[in-house]
Amino acid sequence: MWQLYQFPLCPFSRKVRLVLGEKGIAHELWRENPWEGRAEFFALNPAGRTPVLHDPDKGLSLCDSRAICEYLEETSERAPLIMGTAAARAEIRRLVALFDENFFADVTGPLLHEKMKKRLVLRQAPDSRVLRETMRLAHEHLDYIDYLVDNRPWLGGATLSLADLAAAAHLSVADYLGGIDWNGHEQARAWYSVFKSRPSFRPLLAERMEVIQPPSHYSDVNA
Amino acid sequence: MWQLYQFPLCPFSRKVRLVLGEKGIAHELWRENPWEGRAEFFALNPAGRTPVLHDPDKGLSLCDSRAICEYLEETSERAPLIMGTAAARAEIRRLVALFDENFFADVTGPLLHEKMKKRLVLRQAPDSRVLRETMRLAHEHLDYIDYLVDNRPWLGGATLSLADLAAAAHLSVADYLGGIDWNGHEQARAWYSVFKSRPSFRPLLAERMEVIQPPSHYSDVNA
Ligand SMILES: N[C@@H](CCC(=O)N[C@@H](CS)C(=O)NCC(=O)O)C(=O)O
Ligand SMILES: N[C@@H](CCC(=O)N[C@@H](CS)C(=O)NCC(=O)O)C(=O)O
Repeated sequence: MWQLYQFPLCPFSRKVRLVLGEKGIAHELWRENPWEGRAEFFALNPAGRTPVLHDPDKGLSLCDSRAICEYLEETSERAPLIMGTAAARAEIRRLVALFDENFFADVTGPLLHEKMKKRLVLRQAPDSRVLRETMRLAHEHLDYIDYLVDNRPWLGGATLSLADLAAAAHLSVADYLGGIDWNGHEQARAWYSVFKSRPSFRPLLAERMEVIQPPSHYSDVNA
Repeated sequence: MWQLYQFPLCPFSRKVRLVLGEKGIAHELWRENPWEGRAEFFALNPAGRTPVLHDPDKGLSLCDSRAICEYLEETSERAPLIMGTAAARAEIRRLVALFDENFFADVTGPLLHEKMKKRLVLRQAPDSRVLRETMRLAHEHLDYIDYLVDNRPWLGGATLSLADLAAAAHLSVADYLGGIDWNGHEQARAWYSVFKSRPSFRPLLAERMEVIQPPSHYSDVNA
């Protein structure tokens, strides 16, 4: 069976978990804290990053969440997530990159540093100036999601795609860490609340990471 | 005809140019300095980043170099660059991500900031502490390339693939900026010097970016 090396607040692992869930692919979750730099984990992924999707029977280790998602798309026929014409597929992949790179650099990455790593590893207080800046940038990204939702049924086009899963993965981590103010983003909020009740998403929302507690609206499907 | 928005030292644009060259796809080069933040460019790519591959006749704008490469792979039959079994394709994509993310974060990105942006835009001197650190990290990456070349004909496996093109794109930018010390990396050097004489690579090596001059070995195929 597949083993997914991950930790609960890793947005890239969440994206892969949503893909595994949508496609109904059996897997075990293996907890990995990449900041510990375990030698056995570096043997699976020389970049030392989560997620890694590992099949011990085949001796196969897949690294990098986008490479993993392409692999799952190529090997599973259920629930296509990168579909349509070549141009439509390019649009889905553009949006995945936008969330994995720009949203991560602006919002999820700094929030994980300030609110998770400083709390659990560095034992420091978060920097409120950085938190204000992530909140400001999150509003800009939410404006763009509002705009997409105004123009299309789902973020990447006519159907649910990997673009929605990538966006939901990052937004859910940012929301857990108190970094999302949904006020004024009714379209994004409506899209996200439909998403929150999907069976692939429920197990993620029920999970907690150590002493870090999410705000009360976080796993409330009606919020 | 395709228009590629790019600047000479953008490693992601270089990767796309190598793909276009290998596949023999006609295109024009359009110079874009993303740091100028032109409104017309943001209309093509809301992330404001190079490269963008634009077809004005079809009104099509492809953004994010990995999405662009997947598109070209899906629409052109010539010179496959992501090939083999699903696991082999995942390995190629893992390596592309390693160069585009880790090598860029450790080496190409800081070098572009210190040696290009500070010179052309900020009018500041480079920070020699940062340059020493990029050199140290470049040696670690070159060690990994040595290891790959010891074990496989090409970086991603038995044949030339997108992994080689991504690596060559980043290495060539770092080499241009004087950030690569090839000493002690005979395998990497041999792999790279074969690459340097490919017809897809020659035009890139002949180009110069404004006042910034590369070291003398940079475009020498025998060095
Ligand atoms: N491009 C990678 C990024 C993975 C990534 O950055 N993971 C973080 C955790 S959220 C990590 O492991 N960071 C540790 C490190 O970079 O050393 C992917 O999509 O899988
Ligand atoms: N993931 C993107 C990264 C592109 C990128 O970072 N391009 C740089 C130039 S080398 C850029 O435009 N930077 C300007 C910015 O990020 O604002 C890709 O693969 O195309």
